[in-house]
Amino acid sequence: MSTFFDYVDSNKDRFKDELFELLKIPSISADSKYKKDVKEAATFLENQLKSIGMDEVKLCETDGNPVIFGKHLKAGADKPTVLIYGHYDVQPPDPLDLWETAPFEPTERDGKVYARGASDDKGQAYIHVKAIETWLKSGQDVPVNIKIILEGEEEVGSPNLVPFLKEYKDELACDMVLVSDTAMFAKDTPSITYGLRGLAYMELEVFGPNRDLHSGVYGGAVQNPLNALCEMVAKMKDENSVIQIPGFYDDAIDLTEEEREAGRKLPFNEKEWLGAIGVDEGFGEKGYSTLERKASRPTLDMNGMWGGYQGEGAKTVLPAKAGAKISMRLVPNQDPHKIAKLFTEYCESIKPAGVTIKVTDHHGGDAAMTPLDFYGLKAAAQAYNDVYGKEPLFAREGGSIPIVADFERVLGVNTILMGFGLNSDAIHSPNEHFHLKDFYRGIKTSVRFLEVLSDYKP
Amino acid sequence: MSTFFDYVDSNKDRFKDELFELLKIPSISADSKYKKDVKEAATFLENQLKSIGMDEVKLCETDGNPVIFGKHLKAGADKPTVLIYGHYDVQPPDPLDLWETAPFEPTERDGKVYARGASDDKGQAYIHVKAIETWLKSGQDVPVNIKIILEGEEEVGSPNLVPFLKEYKDELACDMVLVSDTAMFAKDTPSITYGLRGLAYMELEVFGPNRDLHSGVYGGAVQNPLNALCEMVAKMKDENSVIQIPGFYDDAIDLTEEEREAGRKLPFNEKEWLGAIGVDEGFGEKGYSTLERKASRPTLDMNGMWGGYQGEGAKTVLPAKAGAKISMRLVPNQDPHKIAKLFTEYCESIKPAGVTIKVTDHHGGDAAMTPLDFYGLKAAAQAYNDVYGKEPLFAREGGSIPIVADFERVLGVNTILMGFGLNSDAIHSPNEHFHLKDFYRGIKTSVRFLEVLSDYKP
Repeated sequence: MSTFFDYVDSNKDRFKDELFELLKIPSISADSKYKKDVKEAATFLENQLKSIGMDEVKLCETDGNPVIFGKHLKAGADKPTVLIYGHYDVQPPDPLDLWETAPFEPTERDGKVYARGASDDKGQAYIHVKAIETWLKSGQDVPVNIKIILEGEEEVGSPNLVPFLKEYKDELACDMVLVSDTAMFAKDTPSITYGLRGLAYMELEVFGPNRDLHSGVYGGAVQNPLNALCEMVAKMKDENSVIQIPGFYDDAIDLTEEEREAGRKLPFNEKEWLGAIGVDEGFGEKGYSTLERKASRPTLDMNGMWGGYQGEGAKTVLPAKAGAKISMRLVPNQDPHKIAKLFTEYCESIKPAGVTIKVTDHHGGDAAMTPLDFYGLKAAAQAYNDVYGKEPLFAREGGSIPIVADFERVLGVNTILMGFGLNSDAIHSPNEHFHLKDFYRGIKTSVRFLEVLSDYKP
Repeated sequence: MSTFFDYVDSNKDRFKDELFELLKIPSISADSKYKKDVKEAATFLENQLKSIGMDEVKLCETDGNPVIFGKHLKAGADKPTVLIYGHYDVQPPDPLDLWETAPFEPTERDGKVYARGASDDKGQAYIHVKAIETWLKSGQDVPVNIKIILEGEEEVGSPNLVPFLKEYKDELACDMVLVSDTAMFAKDTPSITYGLRGLAYMELEVFGPNRDLHSGVYGGAVQNPLNALCEMVAKMKDENSVIQIPGFYDDAIDLTEEEREAGRKLPFNEKEWLGAIGVDEGFGEKGYSTLERKASRPTLDMNGMWGGYQGEGAKTVLPAKAGAKISMRLVPNQDPHKIAKLFTEYCESIKPAGVTIKVTDHHGGDAAMTPLDFYGLKAAAQAYNDVYGKEPLFAREGGSIPIVADFERVLGVNTILMGFGLNSDAIHSPNEHFHLKDFYRGIKTSVRFLEVLSDYKP
């Protein structure tokens, strides 16, 4: 590996300069007046992939921003094929006055590069571009088959990614997807996220009388939609925070004893985590730790509720209707559509007398989990070990990354989430930054990963 | 009585013309640009009371609009003293475009006068002015002692009435208060309201994390203030709608068997009443009828609730806080301050782990009840019988009329609610009207009431 690592070390400044060039482009996908800049970032990467010597590079138009698609398949059919994913669009930089240096004038301070997109995701995506270059320019071909797609709409929900995946399904065929768009568990603590939760997001409306009533004249003789809604919500979980919807847990895959054991060893400071959000005591499903509850167990949370008078003082109204947004985070093997149906049926079954209800299924997303014995994960762990000098942690995250479920559903493969950022990188916030040390270590880890991976048969 | 009734009959047109003059004055207390008109209405009534020959009439300034205060105490100390109350201010007339004829151009159609204030309360207040005139102009003095106060701030909550009652407490001393500012149970169905509910209006806020959280990253491990609030509300009533606050019913006076029996005979069409508000089935405290629930039993109703995301679609937020307005209608002998305290203590006792709460006591009001054997009620019943040719109904109402509790608290007397309006009079709405037949019958009933009352010793 030393040849490759030497190449990285001796090209550090140029890699950084190139990254700065990319970071200077305000490729904000949420604002159409940056359309030209989004295109410029796409073209920059297209040219990059071509100049480093990939076999085939094309700019694929979509209904939105283009996807840059590169392929290099010299390793042969008996070697694994890895599909690298990244995105070149960025969040808007507002509020601008909170930035110490301008968001699109990348600046190096204390070993970090400050710029919008530094960590999310230009810096992390560019890691793999430079890793591929390292292989190709070091006089040796890449030992596995490489495909790379770089999209420009991640920050607006990737509306055209699934259509792209479906259109190019055959060309995208691979053994795994590699994504660097997450964070390490802590500084200098390489981490692999192997599980993400899914989501079923519902709206529950409760209708009572045909108009708002005077609570004096009518109160006591008419069902109150707000009281009815509260009663229904209270029946959704028991005193141990166990969700009461019949069948809810039937398909859920619980943590294995090995996972729980590994989880207990993660450097997670519960007191600090709760303290940061101003909470004195953890709260949740009985029998599980805070870390397990937030990442590996399904939930039912109200996201919003409304009804009646919300202003100052007192208004004696008995409201005609009430509503709530209620979402459930799901664990692997729970089908969001089935959960939405069970939720709806349960609501009908616990609806109090005197009201009617309407349940709307807003959207859902599958959970995702890469088996811990998947060879891609093993190769990633080895690569981390060789570069960072320590075993990576394996952890599950409580949020959802819809594209990971999309890759699994459309391409039928696992995703390896090899994050080089930190939770403190201020992504989506002013003063976003990325540690250059992890930019370089990331390139080396990617280089090494491709090498280790070649030892496995797909 | 025939002399008096003849006087009323032969002066009908003049009485109506005078009422129209009063109704032409836009005495809207809620809008300061009608200040001059409010004053004009006050002066109109001051002059009226003087011209009909009351002993003493004065305009009493307050921090707001004046109170017209008239006295006529010729009957002597062994005769009852009745204090008549009415108000000369009116609701704003908006929306103007829904009025068939202008709100301050009184118009007669189908035996009704259409104008803002026709029923609420100029028309009903003027009944008693003309009843006093009838006595004084018929060559016979009023057989009981009469005091009358006409205020100009009822539609903005009577902020200066209690200060006025306290300031003039000795001068206002009386044996009962007579108010015509309510409705009859049905057309041609004279009704006396003898009970009103009180009110304790609370706000309950629930605080969780120090900021809104991502429901994926934190959900399941942190108490959700909205869920916590729903749980608390669900514990406030049981499945029979019995309020679970310890001590809540301790002081409440329940319906007597006689009252329930009388209530069953009231011409109340439950199906029609529920149908008008679009509700298929009544709902409330087990063991009580709809009529009993809405008027004679205490309640606990949510008047408003809020928290988290209330917009379109989905936002995966775990809110930092949630809140609700919750009010309880009270029955006679329940003290709003004590109930507010019990509510607060109960909230503390059922607060789930992981959140803090704040309870605010917004305002309260005492319930009021005039004993059915009170001689003033008997006199009123006799007067109705003699004019309408039928016994009046005795009913309790679910709403609160704060001034009635104020009279009881400050002056220590019962109030007789002798309403001549109808629930269909469209008070507070466009096309408010008042049946002229009931204007005239009201004057006769008031005349007769003063006569019958003189047979009783205070």
